[in-house]
Amino acid sequence: MSLKHHTIAGLFTLSTLVPAVASAGDADAGKAKAAVCAACHGKDGIATIPGYPNLAGQNEQYLVSALKAYKNKQRSGGQSTVMQGQAMGLSEDDIANLAAFYASLPAGGQ
Amino acid sequence: MSLKHHTIAGLFTLSTLVPAVASAGDADAGKAKAAVCAACHGKDGIATIPGYPNLAGQNEQYLVSALKAYKNKQRSGGQSTVMQGQAMGLSEDDIANLAAFYASLPAGGQ
Repeated sequence: MSLKHHTIAGLFTLSTLVPAVASAGDADAGKAKAAVCAACHGKDGIATIPGYPNLAGQNEQYLVSALKAYKNKQRSGGQSTVMQGQAMGLSEDDIANLAAFYASLPAGGQ
Repeated sequence: MSLKHHTIAGLFTLSTLVPAVASAGDADAGKAKAAVCAACHGKDGIATIPGYPNLAGQNEQYLVSALKAYKNKQRSGGQSTVMQGQAMGLSEDDIANLAAFYASLPAGGQ
């Protein structure tokens, strides 16, 4: 299967599985909850550790799905055990709020 | 010993002695390889689909570990099956080059 076919199949899967629902997170509540995240991801969402992702300006829906994947232990590569532990105690609201907070920060930390 | 073997031996030595060093990806080679990625992640690394992550300005080491995790099927949440398929055919060099390319792009797509 060519890369092009993978892409087409991927787009089809996406449109089937994710009906474009925006999360209704509260960025202010997310900011309060994000204090512990800052140790690795930076106060402004710019990671303080090279192997960790910047989160500032990241897509809100992606952040929600990533946090849920860590919580559900669907991510096990790299430093995922750290995030599995962090996400374990997060409620659906916490996840939505954290995603809204980091998505609201300027990309690149400007 | 061929040049390739020298290179491999060199990389092995590097990874042994300097484990925290950034990968030595070639951003230009990564740009060429990234054509297929643009369908979802945008030509400038800003995702065209809300559930997908922006990659512009992301940490190079994180991008390497994320691509390896997809390739090794260590990520199964969200739309991970799409990325598992995409990463399947990537070599170590491809991964390093793609990471270097996206890390080199301005965060936020400016």
